Amino acid sequence: MAAAATMKALRKTQAARGLTLATAPVPAIGAAEVLVRVRAASICGTDLHIFGWDRWSQGRIKPPVTLGHEFCGVVERAGEEVTAVKPGDFVSAEMHVNCGHCHQCRLGEAHICQNLRIIGIDEDGAFAEFVKIPATNIWKLDPAIPEQYAAILDPLGNAVHAVLAGPIAGQTVLVTGCGPIGLMAIAVAKACGSSTVFATEVNEQRRAKAKMMGADVAIHPAAEDSVARIRSETGGAGVDVLLEMSGNPAAIQQGFKALRAGGRASLLGIPTGSVALDLVNDVIFKGATVRGIYGRRMYDTWVKMTALLRAGRLNLDPLFGERAPLEKFEGAFTMLQGGHAGKVLLYPNGMPR
Amino acid sequence: MAAAATMKALRKTQAARGLTLATAPVPAIGAAEVLVRVRAASICGTDLHIFGWDRWSQGRIKPPVTLGHEFCGVVERAGEEVTAVKPGDFVSAEMHVNCGHCHQCRLGEAHICQNLRIIGIDEDGAFAEFVKIPATNIWKLDPAIPEQYAAILDPLGNAVHAVLAGPIAGQTVLVTGCGPIGLMAIAVAKACGSSTVFATEVNEQRRAKAKMMGADVAIHPAAEDSVARIRSETGGAGVDVLLEMSGNPAAIQQGFKALRAGGRASLLGIPTGSVALDLVNDVIFKGATVRGIYGRRMYDTWVKMTALLRAGRLNLDPLFGERAPLEKFEGAFTMLQGGHAGKVLLYPNGMPR
Amino acid sequence: MAAAATMKALRKTQAARGLTLATAPVPAIGAAEVLVRVRAASICGTDLHIFGWDRWSQGRIKPPVTLGHEFCGVVERAGEEVTAVKPGDFVSAEMHVNCGHCHQCRLGEAHICQNLRIIGIDEDGAFAEFVKIPATNIWKLDPAIPEQYAAILDPLGNAVHAVLAGPIAGQTVLVTGCGPIGLMAIAVAKACGSSTVFATEVNEQRRAKAKMMGADVAIHPAAEDSVARIRSETGGAGVDVLLEMSGNPAAIQQGFKALRAGGRASLLGIPTGSVALDLVNDVIFKGATVRGIYGRRMYDTWVKMTALLRAGRLNLDPLFGERAPLEKFEGAFTMLQGGHAGKVLLYPNGMPR
Amino acid sequence: MAAAATMKALRKTQAARGLTLATAPVPAIGAAEVLVRVRAASICGTDLHIFGWDRWSQGRIKPPVTLGHEFCGVVERAGEEVTAVKPGDFVSAEMHVNCGHCHQCRLGEAHICQNLRIIGIDEDGAFAEFVKIPATNIWKLDPAIPEQYAAILDPLGNAVHAVLAGPIAGQTVLVTGCGPIGLMAIAVAKACGSSTVFATEVNEQRRAKAKMMGADVAIHPAAEDSVARIRSETGGAGVDVLLEMSGNPAAIQQGFKALRAGGRASLLGIPTGSVALDLVNDVIFKGATVRGIYGRRMYDTWVKMTALLRAGRLNLDPLFGERAPLEKFEGAFTMLQGGHAGKVLLYPNGMPR
Repeated sequence: MAAAATMKALRKTQAARGLTLATAPVPAIGAAEVLVRVRAASICGTDLHIFGWDRWSQGRIKPPVTLGHEFCGVVERAGEEVTAVKPGDFVSAEMHVNCGHCHQCRLGEAHICQNLRIIGIDEDGAFAEFVKIPATNIWKLDPAIPEQYAAILDPLGNAVHAVLAGPIAGQTVLVTGCGPIGLMAIAVAKACGSSTVFATEVNEQRRAKAKMMGADVAIHPAAEDSVARIRSETGGAGVDVLLEMSGNPAAIQQGFKALRAGGRASLLGIPTGSVALDLVNDVIFKGATVRGIYGRRMYDTWVKMTALLRAGRLNLDPLFGERAPLEKFEGAFTMLQGGHAGKVLLYPNGMPR
Repeated sequence: MAAAATMKALRKTQAARGLTLATAPVPAIGAAEVLVRVRAASICGTDLHIFGWDRWSQGRIKPPVTLGHEFCGVVERAGEEVTAVKPGDFVSAEMHVNCGHCHQCRLGEAHICQNLRIIGIDEDGAFAEFVKIPATNIWKLDPAIPEQYAAILDPLGNAVHAVLAGPIAGQTVLVTGCGPIGLMAIAVAKACGSSTVFATEVNEQRRAKAKMMGADVAIHPAAEDSVARIRSETGGAGVDVLLEMSGNPAAIQQGFKALRAGGRASLLGIPTGSVALDLVNDVIFKGATVRGIYGRRMYDTWVKMTALLRAGRLNLDPLFGERAPLEKFEGAFTMLQGGHAGKVLLYPNGMPR
Repeated sequence: MAAAATMKALRKTQAARGLTLATAPVPAIGAAEVLVRVRAASICGTDLHIFGWDRWSQGRIKPPVTLGHEFCGVVERAGEEVTAVKPGDFVSAEMHVNCGHCHQCRLGEAHICQNLRIIGIDEDGAFAEFVKIPATNIWKLDPAIPEQYAAILDPLGNAVHAVLAGPIAGQTVLVTGCGPIGLMAIAVAKACGSSTVFATEVNEQRRAKAKMMGADVAIHPAAEDSVARIRSETGGAGVDVLLEMSGNPAAIQQGFKALRAGGRASLLGIPTGSVALDLVNDVIFKGATVRGIYGRRMYDTWVKMTALLRAGRLNLDPLFGERAPLEKFEGAFTMLQGGHAGKVLLYPNGMPR
Repeated sequence: MAAAATMKALRKTQAARGLTLATAPVPAIGAAEVLVRVRAASICGTDLHIFGWDRWSQGRIKPPVTLGHEFCGVVERAGEEVTAVKPGDFVSAEMHVNCGHCHQCRLGEAHICQNLRIIGIDEDGAFAEFVKIPATNIWKLDPAIPEQYAAILDPLGNAVHAVLAGPIAGQTVLVTGCGPIGLMAIAVAKACGSSTVFATEVNEQRRAKAKMMGADVAIHPAAEDSVARIRSETGGAGVDVLLEMSGNPAAIQQGFKALRAGGRASLLGIPTGSVALDLVNDVIFKGATVRGIYGRRMYDTWVKMTALLRAGRLNLDPLFGERAPLEKFEGAFTMLQGGHAGKVLLYPNGMPR
């Protein structure tokens, strides 16, 4: 049977708001590349920004490009130098492609490579029937891992990286912001031995999900003094760990106020501008440790994330619900722009049974 | 009501096998000391050695001395300089008393103090109606923590210290030896995010308990090639973490063979002599990390252990069952010498309802 | 010979600018305290703030109180419970007195104790003939350590803590701000294996001292684009380590811009208000680690600092020059307020030969 | 000018003692490989074992193969996919070639790859006019680094890896065994802020070199009780860090006895059989940390090592002296087999001026 020459792809075709369902050539692969038939892809907040064509998107995206960087699928073809996977294997992929020779790559910090390119942002991504991936970036999956979980390993990796960037066992935790990564971070923290987990979030639906994911206390920060509440429930000390997932300046500031002296803050949420910090009281006198979190460590985060999943330590079911064929992308994007508290999956090759 | 002047105490009164239930004065306390009325005390393997008067005991123990270093109770009296606890508080204690001024104490490594003295070994301990404890060593407990759990914080601390002496989340683990500390280590490792936990143990009853505590695979090392089995179930790599709880030379050697390159071994079990190690293949070429585990970190292990308990992350129920008034100590010691797979609690002030 | 009952002391006697040379009682010591005859004391920037009676001082200082928290001396008397030192011993002291029972103290983080009191700030200090110190805080010194070095172990400890709060061997370093602690940090970083050390400082005299202390490149940040220069000399990557010693918002911001992705920033300088940080580009996308630095670790920083000094690894001579009897304090404070680039020593018990 | 088709190479041609200076084809390179014209190569202890054809060699070496894994040279040709270096660049190389896809490679621990192949052991090496290297393994050098230093980066990397496998600044150190790597470890430890460095070594010439490299105390372990001496000079505590470079069982045992409680041992020397360790007293009760050291971390050890060299922090001159053209290899090997305390360089392309 001859391989198809063209495919459906959800693309940014012009420097303007919106996306287009287009016909594109099936990618040709090189000797060290893999072609994957996409089973399910998931919409990231970044995709919403690109859809909306905000300032960041205007500076970064060079149309035309196919979006999509969270997905799973089955290997369709592998280049002749590829030994780690073969057609039929169930896979996901790290979509951050590192250069291998910059200072950070040499230091084993490929996730902050100076020359990073992102598939689905800088190159054609996974909102299509097929996607091309360098063999080193392919992550082979145990077939026991549910397909919907496999489609969101990219953001789950963000959460795992953020949680494990310091001690977590026996630690009290505050998660500020309960979007999908915040929600996953709650589950990961509990699976890794955190004790009390607090979550702050203005959206009621998301607070409800936070509890379903394992948060012990979910606080509406506009309705209650979250810092006072957290201090009170931690013997006055504050939490051991802050996982900042909102990018909201007020949440960041409150998070630091709720952090105990000697505590650790993992910052993942992306503020849109500078943030005024009370460095003296919140970082210096506190002897705090702050970790910037970007991407996922390549590939020890993947190893640990996969081990947690394979051992059944993470229940991510509350995240899922909405799904659509790729063609119905408009409704999915609209739902997420409305603050939907979960992941929406797109299916380019037909819906699952 | 006048305080009693004497009390029951289980003592080593002579340099010979056995223990004596004696009448002893209730300890007088200094300004920075606390007198605790013992609720429950637990028998440690060390107590069995002292009972049996083995070579180690003969070199260390200076009779007469009251044994017992695992316990919980209620503060009866506190010296005039004591501010952290007051009569009526529910407490346990770190029974290792450090000097505060040696090199290790200055470095924050009080658990390996050069001048360590142990209450219940070097000074009168908790197999009595009352025990005297320096205020710094008292650990105040949330009343929500079950009394039987509170009585075994000393060995639980050993287990927590061993497990958390390196990364544990998303790690495969082998526990060699399923005595009480090994069993607790299984529960702690699972609570802290380990993935597959293997346990090796020759005693069938203990293997059964290992499964109840959360082990995924319990192996009889004389009946099966444990190294081959573990390698096979870890994709050929071996386990990320070895928790050595047996002190048995063959188990130590097999444990190292089952450890992956780059893995971490926590050694806690006490061999009776030198152990021949294949350092080249098991440590050097493997780039392994080996951690000697003694006591519990003072007091960050206590903080984390308490946090895990308070958050309900540890189910230790399978450990318990047998209990006796202090007077019936002989039966308890005999049962444990027979290989009983669990903790036996003694009650010097009456059995609980 | 009867002990003197009164002594000279440099005190804040009123809630107003200035200090008073007063007569005060020689402190009476408790059983666990030590009385030290002060040999040399050093003026800290904090003392300048209290002299000038700024807003911070007005909120913290409760007159009357004797200032002075950097010093060395000889034990005059020791309480009856004190075993670690005896009269005649050459000593300095950690002037931060921790409570021993708060959450951080229990975790081994006494330097960020919730109930910290500082001798020379909250209690009578070392700008006097005698000072009273808790025995646990006394640091016994090898007589081979020069007296002037021994008088500045408090700020040297700040520098050592800041430098060793992350990897330093083989690392490129930027020190922003070359006051005394910045200058000491340069020497410590070089002694601990840093490669190229950059320093930024607007004061020309301090830049000259920075070179004397071992800086490879000293930059006037108003006269040159320090970020461009540093990037250019680090192959475009930026420095591995930022040691922020200025508290100046612009210096902090430039320091973060000069930090490489994956780098570590130790923040010690105290800004007077909030600082606007570009968290996205300078911390999050960079995967940076930020460490708040307060005081000195109790007491592992002291152990390492002493080891470096005893081994002759630190040449601090360029810091010294000016010295005065306690009575001439006015001139010393005036000189330092003028930006003098070094430490000024005061001698309450007569000038050294 | 046509490239030469053949070259001189020092090869193991038969499964027997000795080496042969042979004519071999100049290696053909692939698209991602580099051909290097060798300037200087250095003889490793491993080469002596292969020369002597010991049991290990018989199991590992498959003749014919060209030896040599310590070298520097100039890029002669680069494959078409190579971007990081170009002809004329001064380079060395990591000769351990990792697979990139095993568990350890995925975890960023390429130096302990499960499928490691070593150039100069498993494939043709650098005792030849030319050597072929994968581009990822090439390490570009600053021309300011002396040629003789550049020829020994492989063992210097072993030393740096061993020293930096734990804290070193302000630490007392014992180096057991003063062969070339032990001698380099002394220099590295001093450059990275260690305080007192002790060295034990039976060979007098090597003890003298140890002092030249920076050791404070060099002990003949057969003539003096090294453990007693070290304890006495460390206030009774023992050293903070043991760097075991001998592989000798007695030295390993004494090294552990001289290690303080809480100390760290880096084991690099290769014993020929099992070693009996007093695990209870030397590891477990001590709370010691033991690190197996193999190869060099890829490539953060290289980054740090290069930074130390470029900053002039390492004086390795005492190591050098003997050098020979490749043709005179027999004399060089004989000298080293006699216990010569230094590195011997071979020049396949003519002696330097």
